[in-house]
Amino acid sequence: MAEQNDFRTVSLDKTGTKLRIIDQTKLPNSVVWLEMDEIEQVWQAIRTLAVRGAPAIGVAAATGLAVASAKIRAKDFAEFYQQFCRMKAYLATARPTAVNLSWALERMKQVVLQNKMYDPITIKGALLTEAEAIAEEDIARCRAIGQAGLPLLAGVRAVLTHCNAGRLAAVQYGTALAPLYLAKEQGQDIRVFVDETRPQLQGARLTAWELHEAGIEVTLLCDNMAAAVMAAGLVDAVIVGADRVAANGDVANKIGTSGLAIMAESFDIPFYVAAPGSTVDMACQAGRDIVVENREAAEVTELWYEQPMAPEGIDVFNPAFDITPAGRITAVITDHGVIGQPLAENLAAAFGG
Amino acid sequence: MAEQNDFRTVSLDKTGTKLRIIDQTKLPNSVVWLEMDEIEQVWQAIRTLAVRGAPAIGVAAATGLAVASAKIRAKDFAEFYQQFCRMKAYLATARPTAVNLSWALERMKQVVLQNKMYDPITIKGALLTEAEAIAEEDIARCRAIGQAGLPLLAGVRAVLTHCNAGRLAAVQYGTALAPLYLAKEQGQDIRVFVDETRPQLQGARLTAWELHEAGIEVTLLCDNMAAAVMAAGLVDAVIVGADRVAANGDVANKIGTSGLAIMAESFDIPFYVAAPGSTVDMACQAGRDIVVENREAAEVTELWYEQPMAPEGIDVFNPAFDITPAGRITAVITDHGVIGQPLAENLAAAFGG
Repeated sequence: MAEQNDFRTVSLDKTGTKLRIIDQTKLPNSVVWLEMDEIEQVWQAIRTLAVRGAPAIGVAAATGLAVASAKIRAKDFAEFYQQFCRMKAYLATARPTAVNLSWALERMKQVVLQNKMYDPITIKGALLTEAEAIAEEDIARCRAIGQAGLPLLAGVRAVLTHCNAGRLAAVQYGTALAPLYLAKEQGQDIRVFVDETRPQLQGARLTAWELHEAGIEVTLLCDNMAAAVMAAGLVDAVIVGADRVAANGDVANKIGTSGLAIMAESFDIPFYVAAPGSTVDMACQAGRDIVVENREAAEVTELWYEQPMAPEGIDVFNPAFDITPAGRITAVITDHGVIGQPLAENLAAAFGG
Repeated sequence: MAEQNDFRTVSLDKTGTKLRIIDQTKLPNSVVWLEMDEIEQVWQAIRTLAVRGAPAIGVAAATGLAVASAKIRAKDFAEFYQQFCRMKAYLATARPTAVNLSWALERMKQVVLQNKMYDPITIKGALLTEAEAIAEEDIARCRAIGQAGLPLLAGVRAVLTHCNAGRLAAVQYGTALAPLYLAKEQGQDIRVFVDETRPQLQGARLTAWELHEAGIEVTLLCDNMAAAVMAAGLVDAVIVGADRVAANGDVANKIGTSGLAIMAESFDIPFYVAAPGSTVDMACQAGRDIVVENREAAEVTELWYEQPMAPEGIDVFNPAFDITPAGRITAVITDHGVIGQPLAENLAAAFGG
């Protein structure tokens, strides 16, 4: 194992002057850490998915903007603010649809404005402090998810997960994987069956890697093998992340999640969704209100390494995620505690609505 | 379209002196036809999966043995028979576990023995005739499956299939795809949603290719997208092949089949298995009596093009097939007609037991 169990996938470097991230595009074949302090490098890292996962993108953007701002040469606030805003606007274009990216950048801008009476050196320090705060908050949030979920894993020998909702997506513990990292910390050995997660193979490339790195036993499977694993009695629970939880408890998550929920139900295996409270969208009534993004056919036809493996001229179905109906979800594990059935009622109680 | 709708994937060439097969390892990127009359070439084609699928292997072996035997120089029966037996024994080693291979070779040997009173030229003719008979019987069997299944497709706009149980596996119509080819012949346009079928991608590489080649509309999807396709109301039926049908109606078929059956049931979509009667094994009581072969990890971790996409040191779950319980199967479509529920009773009536 190259790193400690508790390493951060996105952080400041030791000197406090550079953003340090693990390059997710090189995993699992090479473990490459990137260090950068130029805004163009940060933009590139976000654009090329060297860093991905909503929380990780937010932390990387905040930290990247802080270290790049630290190098601004400005004689007064106006000059500093102008250069800061130019960098912030530029960085926001790296992944325009990533809500966490613009949220983190906006928060950094507020820090600048709140400190406009101070000289640029002080503002630079405040920006680094804020970036660190954003990272710490994310870690605490994920740890809280882990602690909420831990009791559900009592006596569990193996779980099945899909895609990557681990530390690569969220700095240190991840969301769906947080309860597993905490169980490991407490000496409970839980094997994790990992769906490879076509088309982009985040399970095989990222989840299998990060769990294995942490000393957790991993069994990789193709997505279509989940029913066979369940039928063989090999998994005691399914645990996945979420892109969005609607007010009625329907969950949007990586394509393949809804099928797992159907299979888990048919084998009487608990099906858990783990996500931060910020993922619960009380303004969204139900899954039918969520627009599913369709992605390009080449992801399916050209595999990860861009080798064509399907004939030209056919159609391709490639939705980015699917909707799991609330009724098939045993519980939603959040940093505000475990929300059980009936989900609509209990989500409203916990998150207002 | 390079070929007619009704082309054979395995046949004698026009001169009647060579075995002609489509090289399945080159699909879908190149359409390469191989012609051969040396027994070593036939062995190689079977070994390297240039020809695959139980019926196709049987026909290729019989035809290959016939054309190679046609070149034997022998002054009497004893000499001919010795050389014939040497070639037959050699060819049987190409895929020792393929039941259809040894069955077809044995049948060819019986032809030689039945004609031992005639001179080698006559025997050579009888071998070519027998090989052609084996091919014709397979085509007739598959056409019968297609005709039995056709009424089930009345009003159906789209079906979903898994793996390859088409003409590439079975000379001309295939098994699961036979009803679809017959529907096409009759002018009914049915779209086929094709699971890519990890790990070996037979759906993407072979099924998508052969259906597209026949002018049938194809939508390719990753295996984990089946639930989303069903939830969207896009498919009216699922139709798959079978490796083995047990006496109680449990079906062994390509890994992923059992999950599809669970999902189809939950969306109230009929789930059909199409297979020749020879696949029904009345001596096998139930699915639990079928030993599932586990295949090598590299198939999962290295994709089709041998690029590693998973970390070293992890475990891999890679069963070749799974068991779909009889209760989840709407009907089994065979060349002896459609066997509906209760499967155990109706299989016994149709196939004895």
